[in-house]
Amino acid sequence: MKAPTIIALLYGPDQPGLVARVSSWIFLRGSNIHHADQHKDLEANIFFQRIEWTPSGQIDEEAAGFEKFAHEDLGMTVKVAKSTDRPKVALFVSKIDHCFHDTILRFRSGEMAGELVCIISNHDTLKANAETYGIPFYQVPVSKETKAEAEIKQLEIVHSHNANLVVMARYMQVLSDDFLNKAGCPVINIHHSFLPAFAGGKPYHQAHARGVKLIGATAHYATADLDEGPIIHQDVTRINHRNSVPDLVRKGKDLEKSVFAQAIRLHLDNRILVYHNKTVVFD
Amino acid sequence: MKAPTIIALLYGPDQPGLVARVSSWIFLRGSNIHHADQHKDLEANIFFQRIEWTPSGQIDEEAAGFEKFAHEDLGMTVKVAKSTDRPKVALFVSKIDHCFHDTILRFRSGEMAGELVCIISNHDTLKANAETYGIPFYQVPVSKETKAEAEIKQLEIVHSHNANLVVMARYMQVLSDDFLNKAGCPVINIHHSFLPAFAGGKPYHQAHARGVKLIGATAHYATADLDEGPIIHQDVTRINHRNSVPDLVRKGKDLEKSVFAQAIRLHLDNRILVYHNKTVVFD
Amino acid sequence: MKAPTIIALLYGPDQPGLVARVSSWIFLRGSNIHHADQHKDLEANIFFQRIEWTPSGQIDEEAAGFEKFAHEDLGMTVKVAKSTDRPKVALFVSKIDHCFHDTILRFRSGEMAGELVCIISNHDTLKANAETYGIPFYQVPVSKETKAEAEIKQLEIVHSHNANLVVMARYMQVLSDDFLNKAGCPVINIHHSFLPAFAGGKPYHQAHARGVKLIGATAHYATADLDEGPIIHQDVTRINHRNSVPDLVRKGKDLEKSVFAQAIRLHLDNRILVYHNKTVVFD
Amino acid sequence: MKAPTIIALLYGPDQPGLVARVSSWIFLRGSNIHHADQHKDLEANIFFQRIEWTPSGQIDEEAAGFEKFAHEDLGMTVKVAKSTDRPKVALFVSKIDHCFHDTILRFRSGEMAGELVCIISNHDTLKANAETYGIPFYQVPVSKETKAEAEIKQLEIVHSHNANLVVMARYMQVLSDDFLNKAGCPVINIHHSFLPAFAGGKPYHQAHARGVKLIGATAHYATADLDEGPIIHQDVTRINHRNSVPDLVRKGKDLEKSVFAQAIRLHLDNRILVYHNKTVVFD
Repeated sequence: MKAPTIIALLYGPDQPGLVARVSSWIFLRGSNIHHADQHKDLEANIFFQRIEWTPSGQIDEEAAGFEKFAHEDLGMTVKVAKSTDRPKVALFVSKIDHCFHDTILRFRSGEMAGELVCIISNHDTLKANAETYGIPFYQVPVSKETKAEAEIKQLEIVHSHNANLVVMARYMQVLSDDFLNKAGCPVINIHHSFLPAFAGGKPYHQAHARGVKLIGATAHYATADLDEGPIIHQDVTRINHRNSVPDLVRKGKDLEKSVFAQAIRLHLDNRILVYHNKTVVFD
Repeated sequence: MKAPTIIALLYGPDQPGLVARVSSWIFLRGSNIHHADQHKDLEANIFFQRIEWTPSGQIDEEAAGFEKFAHEDLGMTVKVAKSTDRPKVALFVSKIDHCFHDTILRFRSGEMAGELVCIISNHDTLKANAETYGIPFYQVPVSKETKAEAEIKQLEIVHSHNANLVVMARYMQVLSDDFLNKAGCPVINIHHSFLPAFAGGKPYHQAHARGVKLIGATAHYATADLDEGPIIHQDVTRINHRNSVPDLVRKGKDLEKSVFAQAIRLHLDNRILVYHNKTVVFD
Repeated sequence: MKAPTIIALLYGPDQPGLVARVSSWIFLRGSNIHHADQHKDLEANIFFQRIEWTPSGQIDEEAAGFEKFAHEDLGMTVKVAKSTDRPKVALFVSKIDHCFHDTILRFRSGEMAGELVCIISNHDTLKANAETYGIPFYQVPVSKETKAEAEIKQLEIVHSHNANLVVMARYMQVLSDDFLNKAGCPVINIHHSFLPAFAGGKPYHQAHARGVKLIGATAHYATADLDEGPIIHQDVTRINHRNSVPDLVRKGKDLEKSVFAQAIRLHLDNRILVYHNKTVVFD
Repeated sequence: MKAPTIIALLYGPDQPGLVARVSSWIFLRGSNIHHADQHKDLEANIFFQRIEWTPSGQIDEEAAGFEKFAHEDLGMTVKVAKSTDRPKVALFVSKIDHCFHDTILRFRSGEMAGELVCIISNHDTLKANAETYGIPFYQVPVSKETKAEAEIKQLEIVHSHNANLVVMARYMQVLSDDFLNKAGCPVINIHHSFLPAFAGGKPYHQAHARGVKLIGATAHYATADLDEGPIIHQDVTRINHRNSVPDLVRKGKDLEKSVFAQAIRLHLDNRILVYHNKTVVFD
C-alpha cells in the first residue's frame, strides 16, 4: 500500500445508509477502500467513521470532493487528510526533559507521521539540546505579570511555523483559554493520574503517603472552558511500599513518555475523533 | 438496539467495492447498519468483514438473502448469525475444576451469548457439581485402548445435543483429528504458555526451575493436522522468586479462566474469523 | 516446609539492632527462619517486619514467648499467627453474586488459608446458592429505619461464629463506624475506581460518558472515621469506545473478583501491616 | 538515608541462624540495617540475602570485614558494594539505535547508579551521536573471518576502561564463549520473545503470520556454554490484526527499551543474584 491514500474522519447525526453512501461514493469513482471503521454512540445518536482509501483520480481533487460530499450531502463534520501529509508540530517544554528527548527521538526515528518544527520553553535549560537535535528553540519567559504577553509571543511562533499541533511535553504552565482559542490547532497535554485522585501539589508524595498501589498517566486535549479536556490515552504501573518517592517519579516519567507518545501518534495518524468532551479512538 | 440484528462474518479474495457493495445491499432494502469492521491482509490479499445490522424485513429471509449474495455475488466465505441465536455449547472437563466452575457461572450470569447444554468428562469427579448446576453430565472413561470408542460416544453426545461449539475446560486428553473432523463444530482449547516455551511435563515446575518472570495462557481452536490451532486470545501474569510452584499453578489457573472465558465470549459474539491457521478478532 | 510455622507481623518505632535482636531470639532457641522481610518508613521512622520460622519447641509456647518479647522488649505492635491457623471469615453480600461465587469457590479449592463460616445478606436472593455450598446463610433485612438494629443482629452472627475477618463481597450497604468498632476484626471491602474519579451514582455510566480508557477496582480495609480505609490491592483494565456500559460492568466484575480475592488472600497469609491509613504488603 | 551504605549480596548452602548471624555481625559493631531481604530455594537448599546498612566505622574496612566474615565464617559466595560506587558500563551496539539512545539518556538523567564509559560498535552509524553525548566511541568491524581478532580488540577496550558491566543494546553479533569468559564482568543482553517461540529470522514477520496476540522482550545475562543465560526481566505487550509488521517492530522496540533499562538498573542497584542459570531479583 505504497500509493498515497486519503483518510477521512467524519461524524454527525446518525441516519440510515451512511456506510453505504460513503463507501459507494468512493467505489463509484473507481477508488479502493483499505480501512473503514465505524462507531455509533447510541445514546447521543451520533455516527463516527474513519475511512482510508487509494484515490483513482488526482488526490487533492478527490479529497476536496469527498469533503464537500460528506459536509453538504451527509451533514457531517469532516476532516480529510492524506497519508503523505507531514503535519507540523510545536513542542512546549519547561526544564524537565524526559518527554522532550523521547518525543524528539521518536520523530527522528520516523515513528511519527509528522515533523517537529519548533520548541518553545519558558527556560533556556534545553536550548543546547534542541540545537544538537537541529530544531529551532525559542525561549519565552513567563511570569504571572507577563503571561498574557508571553502567550502572544508563543502564538506568533506557533503561527510563524504553521504548526498543526501543539504538544506540551511537561510544560509546567497552564495555557489560557485565550491561547487555546487562538492557537488554531489542537493542543495535547500529559499529566499523572492516581487512584484515588490527589488535589494540590507533590502528587507523588501524596500517593506515597496514601500507600496507593498503582500510579497512572493521562494524555488529553487541552480545551478552553474545561478543567480537563477529552482523554486520548491512559496507562498505569504497579508500585509497592519498597518504592521511594524518587522511584515513583521515575516510574511516572516512563509512563508519561509512553502515554504521551501514543497520544501524539494516534493524533498524527488521524485516529481520533472528539465530541462532547470525549474521544473515539480508532486504533 | 433491542431489535434483533443480523451479524455476518465474511472473508475472501479482495476486490474493489466490497465495502460499498455489502453496505449498499443492506441500505437499499431499508435496513440499518450498526457496526461494520473491515480488515485486509495485504500480503494474502484477503478481505475480512464483520457487519451487524437491523433488518427491515423478515430476519431469517434477510439473513438467508445476504448469505446467498455474499457467497454467490461476492465470492466470499460467509457465516450469518442472529443476535437472538443461542448457540449450544458442550463442555469437556477432567478433574480440574477452575475453568469448569468459572465457565458455567459466566453462562448462568447471562454474560455469554449461548447455552451450556452438556458436560462430558472422563471422570465422575464433577458429576455432583454438574447436577447442582442443572446441566446434563456424561462420564465417558478414556484409556489408551478405548480412546477411539470413547470418542464415538463423545461425538454421539455432542451431536445429540446439537452442540454448535465444544469447549475444553482443562480436559486433559487430546482429541483426535478424527474427532475434530467429525465434530461438525469448532473446538476451543486452553493451555498455559511460557517465555521461553517448555517441552515435556510439569511446565510450572520447569518455569520455576528456569526462573521465568512471566507465565501465560493461550486459548486457541483445536485443529486436525495441526499441532496447535489458530490463537484466539493470550494473556500473561508476572511472577517472581518468592512464588512457589503452587503459587504459579494458582496464578496460572486465574489466567486460564479469564483467557478461556474471553475466547468463548469472542466466539459466541461472532467476532472471530479464521484463515491460514490464524485469527482476525474484531473486538 | 511441611512442619507448622510461626508468622509474626510487627511494627513500631525504628531503633538499631531490630533485625538482629528478632533473628537472634529465634536462632538462639534453635528455631529456623524461612522468610524475613523488613521495611522502614524513613519519614515516619517506623520499622516493619514479617518473619516466618519453624519453632524448635512447642509452637504455642514459642509464639506466645515471641509476642511477649516483641511487645515488651522491643516495644513493637505485634501479631503472631501459625501456619496451621484457619481464620474464620464472614461474608457479607447483597444480590450481586460475582464476588460471592468467586470467593466461595476459592475457599473451597483450598486456595485461601481460612474458612468461610457464614454468609450475611440483606436479601434472600443467594440463600439457595449458599445452601448448595453448605455455608450457613443469614438474612438480615436493612432499611434506613432498622439499620442500627440490623447491625446489632449482624454483629451477633459475626460474633457467634467467632469470625476473625469480615469480607464485603459487593454488600451494597455502608457499615457504620459503630459496627466497625464493635466487629472486633478487620473488614475488607471492594469497590470500583476510576481515572479520574466520579462522584455520585452509576459510575460506569459516568466513565462511559467521559470516555475514560481504563477502569479499576480497589480493595481496602473499611475503617471507622475514615471515608476510605487503607488500600490493600488495586488493578485496572483497558476499555475503548466499542465497549458498552454492560461491557464495562462485566469487565469491572472480573476486576472486582480478582482484586477482592487477592486482598483476602494477602490478609489470610498474614502479609499486610496497616499504619497511618496505609498498608505495607509483604507479597 | 544520605550517609553511604554497604550493600551485600550473598548466597550459599542454607544453615540455621544465617539471618541472625549476619544481622548480629552488623548490629554488634553499632551499624544500622536499612533493608534485608532473604530467600530460600527449598529444593536446592540455598540461602540468598541482600542486605544494606550504614556502617558505624570506616566504610571500606567494614565492607572488607563483612566480605571476609560472610565468606570464611558463613561459607557464602558474597559480593559487597557501596552506595557510592559508580560501576563503569561498556555499551555494545550495531546500527539500531532505540536502546542506544534510551540507555544513554537514562544514564545522563541520573536514573542509573553507574557511568557509561565507552561505546563499541561494529559500524560507524552511531559515531556522531556518541560524540554528541560525549562518550568515547570505538568502531570494531566484525566479519566471520575477523571475529576472534575483533573480540580481542573489544576486550582490550573493555578492560582499558575498567568496565564492570557490558550491556548489549541490540548488538547484532553473538559474543563468543571466549569473550564472555575473558570479559571479567557480567554481560546483559536483550532480545524479543514470543508465545509461542519462533526459530529462525524475521521473528516479527513470523509472529504476524502466526497471528499471535502478545509480543515480548527478555533481558538476560549472556553466559558461556549456554544458549540463553539467566533471565533478569521480561515484559509483553498486546497486539492485534490491525497491527502491521512495522507496528510490531515499533511496539517491540518500546518493550526492548524498558526491559533492557530495568535489567541494567536492577544489576547496578545490586538487586540480582544468579545461580543454576536463574536469578533471584530483590526488587
